[in-house]
Amino acid sequence: MRAAVFRGGELVVDDVAEPVPGKGQVLVKTLACGICGSDLHALHYAPRMVEASRRVSGRPGMDLAQDIVFGHEFCAEVIEHGPGTDKRHKVGTRVCSVPVTFTAAGSATVGYSNIAPGGYAERMVLSEGLMIEVPNGLSDEQAALTEPMAVGWHAVERARLTPNDVPLVIGCGPVGLAVIAGLRIKGVHPILAADFSPARRRLAETMGADIVLDPAEHSPYTRWQDEATPEGFDPENPLARLGVGPQRRPGVVFECVGVPGIIQQIFEGAMRNTRVVVVGVNMESDTIEPFFGITKEIDLQFVLGYTPQEFALALHHLAEGKIDGAPLVTGKVGVEGVKQAFQDLANPEAHAKIMVEPWR
Amino acid sequence: MRAAVFRGGELVVDDVAEPVPGKGQVLVKTLACGICGSDLHALHYAPRMVEASRRVSGRPGMDLAQDIVFGHEFCAEVIEHGPGTDKRHKVGTRVCSVPVTFTAAGSATVGYSNIAPGGYAERMVLSEGLMIEVPNGLSDEQAALTEPMAVGWHAVERARLTPNDVPLVIGCGPVGLAVIAGLRIKGVHPILAADFSPARRRLAETMGADIVLDPAEHSPYTRWQDEATPEGFDPENPLARLGVGPQRRPGVVFECVGVPGIIQQIFEGAMRNTRVVVVGVNMESDTIEPFFGITKEIDLQFVLGYTPQEFALALHHLAEGKIDGAPLVTGKVGVEGVKQAFQDLANPEAHAKIMVEPWR
Repeated sequence: MRAAVFRGGELVVDDVAEPVPGKGQVLVKTLACGICGSDLHALHYAPRMVEASRRVSGRPGMDLAQDIVFGHEFCAEVIEHGPGTDKRHKVGTRVCSVPVTFTAAGSATVGYSNIAPGGYAERMVLSEGLMIEVPNGLSDEQAALTEPMAVGWHAVERARLTPNDVPLVIGCGPVGLAVIAGLRIKGVHPILAADFSPARRRLAETMGADIVLDPAEHSPYTRWQDEATPEGFDPENPLARLGVGPQRRPGVVFECVGVPGIIQQIFEGAMRNTRVVVVGVNMESDTIEPFFGITKEIDLQFVLGYTPQEFALALHHLAEGKIDGAPLVTGKVGVEGVKQAFQDLANPEAHAKIMVEPWR
Repeated sequence: MRAAVFRGGELVVDDVAEPVPGKGQVLVKTLACGICGSDLHALHYAPRMVEASRRVSGRPGMDLAQDIVFGHEFCAEVIEHGPGTDKRHKVGTRVCSVPVTFTAAGSATVGYSNIAPGGYAERMVLSEGLMIEVPNGLSDEQAALTEPMAVGWHAVERARLTPNDVPLVIGCGPVGLAVIAGLRIKGVHPILAADFSPARRRLAETMGADIVLDPAEHSPYTRWQDEATPEGFDPENPLARLGVGPQRRPGVVFECVGVPGIIQQIFEGAMRNTRVVVVGVNMESDTIEPFFGITKEIDLQFVLGYTPQEFALALHHLAEGKIDGAPLVTGKVGVEGVKQAFQDLANPEAHAKIMVEPWR
């Protein structure tokens, strides 16, 4: 089958072996698969990802000397049931799945494993028990947004929000936009969002941000503190700390950039007791001044991924129209177009999410 | 009055001006005042503390060109009521107070301010509204442990403990010991504690640690993971992450060291979903690899100080015998002995907490 293959540090288009469903697995046709920022990252930092995975878990995760087919944000159609399946989704059913599959050789991440090719190929094998049907005639490309929307929803869930919180989203790439969509569903307002890109700020408004900010113009932290601060509040008054008089609303910052220096920037801009949810994936070392975190009693919650329940809920948010993902999809390509799409995604004015349609 | 004074970067004994209670203030005699690690820090890093305070809050906090009398962990006796007081504690009453006082010039931290001399002097002025009477005939020096015990209790409160948690305390100085005391009151077990010093490990056991560990002998993180891990648990099995099969007990790490590198060490040693409570005060820059925090979804909660309610509760824990602070007090000195005591406290085998008794 045709696929965009990560081979020798490059993306090439080639024919690869047809996947064969094992016990409990189902063969599916890839209908749409989003290109994720992690894939862009992997293209350039694959050895670092492998090394980091080995250091954290003791397992490298991937063998870079062998082919890998990326693609973990997909919508697919059931073609054929493997042995030991219940056939609970009949042939032709459109499905989503968390990108994990169980094989005889152990579990594997679909799209980041040598044994589980992802959605940049015409076909995949998925584990039947993790597949969920796409409801309500939701379009293929919107269903393929389930995975990134689950990432945002998970981050919002981990933030332990209260209705009084004032959220600030730093960075409006797909992850930041998914967080904004989750915040709108949670009903906390105002939702503030900051990005240097005008196109991304427009998308942030579309997804539900109440106030969008250009960091080149003025500090997002100042505006966010203003929104959280009632009239008559004096931050220098220790009685306020003792609960006397007007109190600031609690602040929550979502770090959706993932480059060195952002956490320290948030430390400096944060209010006392701010919860910071780190959704951006920074693969580099980072420098912080803990004194800021200590003095402000900041809670730094690192998050990753989602639970299967959160994933299923994200699909329902899309299918029920609680999230309209359509504006995020700014392009569609076949496997031949993946390499160019990786380059095009570097320009936030032109693109947010490009879908790969390997059947083209 | 006689005091140990911080002047020109040195500790000197001198006569300083008698404090005069202002509106709402009470003149007290210092009965006992603990030497805190922050005081040791301030002796060497005062300019950095001032600079950090200025960067965080916009206020330097202290003017190092003028005298400062340290001492914020005190028990005192009421001598004389200032104007505008209710005289709710009669002369002779023994009291504790959070080390904050309200003056005509604004609020000040007792012991870290030019206008509010602390407990290394014969007398202090405190704000009547913040004073609480020492109950149950608790000894002066144990009452003076209220402040450090409140620091530990606050950290334990911020950890959002559940009965199933397995706590690990890294560093058994006074702060770590106070955390252990708080954990014993919370009833979570086993309490694991690690320190290189044999004397500190003995104190950790006295304060309530169930398992004490010498990091020079073996990794505290390995033993802690073993305690949290049920038979049959396979950390490599993704089904375990989905909640299928035996689950590890949640882990909580209390960082009570406060030097660069400890947070990253904890990142590397932590289990998935570990909550890390940072109680140690590291005034330097620090380097972390966020990838560890992200992959393990670590929550890094920085904490500082306590609420007035937590402070009052710490005093009651001591007075009701829920915490026996006596073993922590390893020495007593007059103001003439403060300088030597600062040096003696560098040896964890010899000392934990030295009390200043300025009336000597």
